[in-house]
Amino acid sequence: LIAEGTHFETNELSFRQIGRKALAVNLSDLAAMGATPTAATFSLLLTRGPNTPQQAVEITEGGAELAQQFNVDIVGGDTNVWNGPLVVSVTALGTVPIGSAWLRSGARPGDSIIVTGELGGSRGQHHYGFTPRIEAAIALRRDYTVHAAMDISDGLGLDLFRMAHASGVGADLDAAQIPISRAAHAVSQRDQHSPIEHALQDGEDFELLLAMPAESADRLLHDANFPVRCTRIGRFSEELGLWKTTPEGRVALIPQGYLHR
Amino acid sequence: LIAEGTHFETNELSFRQIGRKALAVNLSDLAAMGATPTAATFSLLLTRGPNTPQQAVEITEGGAELAQQFNVDIVGGDTNVWNGPLVVSVTALGTVPIGSAWLRSGARPGDSIIVTGELGGSRGQHHYGFTPRIEAAIALRRDYTVHAAMDISDGLGLDLFRMAHASGVGADLDAAQIPISRAAHAVSQRDQHSPIEHALQDGEDFELLLAMPAESADRLLHDANFPVRCTRIGRFSEELGLWKTTPEGRVALIPQGYLHR
Repeated sequence: LIAEGTHFETNELSFRQIGRKALAVNLSDLAAMGATPTAATFSLLLTRGPNTPQQAVEITEGGAELAQQFNVDIVGGDTNVWNGPLVVSVTALGTVPIGSAWLRSGARPGDSIIVTGELGGSRGQHHYGFTPRIEAAIALRRDYTVHAAMDISDGLGLDLFRMAHASGVGADLDAAQIPISRAAHAVSQRDQHSPIEHALQDGEDFELLLAMPAESADRLLHDANFPVRCTRIGRFSEELGLWKTTPEGRVALIPQGYLHR
Repeated sequence: LIAEGTHFETNELSFRQIGRKALAVNLSDLAAMGATPTAATFSLLLTRGPNTPQQAVEITEGGAELAQQFNVDIVGGDTNVWNGPLVVSVTALGTVPIGSAWLRSGARPGDSIIVTGELGGSRGQHHYGFTPRIEAAIALRRDYTVHAAMDISDGLGLDLFRMAHASGVGADLDAAQIPISRAAHAVSQRDQHSPIEHALQDGEDFELLLAMPAESADRLLHDANFPVRCTRIGRFSEELGLWKTTPEGRVALIPQGYLHR
């Protein structure tokens, strides 16, 4: 569920982009479970006004375009009007083989920490234009072994901490390996934070964070046909806590991330 | 999706009742399709405040209690906090044999018009405490023939008009047969509307409106084991329009009902 003023502003996103994003965050959740999406419902709570019907059309069209891209059927929902801000509630459904949904709690010591794509770009346009990693998830499920997965929605630092904590393991990040987006570099020139701080702490990357056995990860990193760039950024270990190795040495990392206000 | 100030007021309903109602209206929709409900998701947009966590628990518990009653699993959802009014968005899933969902467009001339329960009671407590007609729908699907169905959410007059219109038929109501709730009689003593006006025009009855072949309806009306009272209130006909037969004769009925503001 996304709400105006909390998750988006209507002067920053078009209604099409709002509809697209409402579905995209759901598809990202399905990808994080290794699911193949099948269907979605759209429930709208629209602000009463002369443009309300047109807004409903644009929100739905923005969602439908993304749905079509991933063979998702829009199968239901609800349309309401009130005097409050816009709220869009999407439920997406997908399938996994019984008992095999990826959880965040399955990481094991020795597993490689893998991320898709590049991190830290959400201050730019990435947070609404991102592609949910459905194709990557389907390819991973078909050809590789995944012990744990989640999508990075609150920043790598915080989400990696959550995965490690849920799995009862620690995590060692190799800071130099973290794939930092050009947008993070660009934003970093304008504020007091380094690109890696953006990559670790910015929310809404919507990339996959994976725990994979080292052998399966090795093979993935050499797979020229894989649909998205993947990077090994460290490994899970028995020593609890979140650690970062930099040229200056190995330091404990305080999990910080983006918490929605 | 139900929203504070539009679909309910928090000084009229407890948070448990809000959670129950959010699911109940969805289960009523499933019953109207002749579906067996299986699962539901709850997405909450809570008003920020000291009691927010407690409210989330109570809303979810109210929903879970009804879910359990109908063997519905709560399988997902989302929890958000903002400074606006409370919004509860529920998606419910159910199953029907492929291609056999009841629609509102299947009524045929000669079909009996059947309603479950009693009408006009929504000004009382019925609009949040009602039992969705899941059991009746399952029994109807198993033992009877249903050509068209919907749940009465905007008043019998308006919803019967919609069914007749969608089916390309007319409808003849036998006014004396309409089952009027005690609550409608009680409210009628306090306002300028007759009990039958309440039964025809009040919203949120959440009873089933059915088009059934006359023979199947005859059998239903003699079924002592059927889970809910059913009443034949007229028949569908080839003559388009909505008609009401009263002791004074047969008059055209102007479809009026409850339209959510």
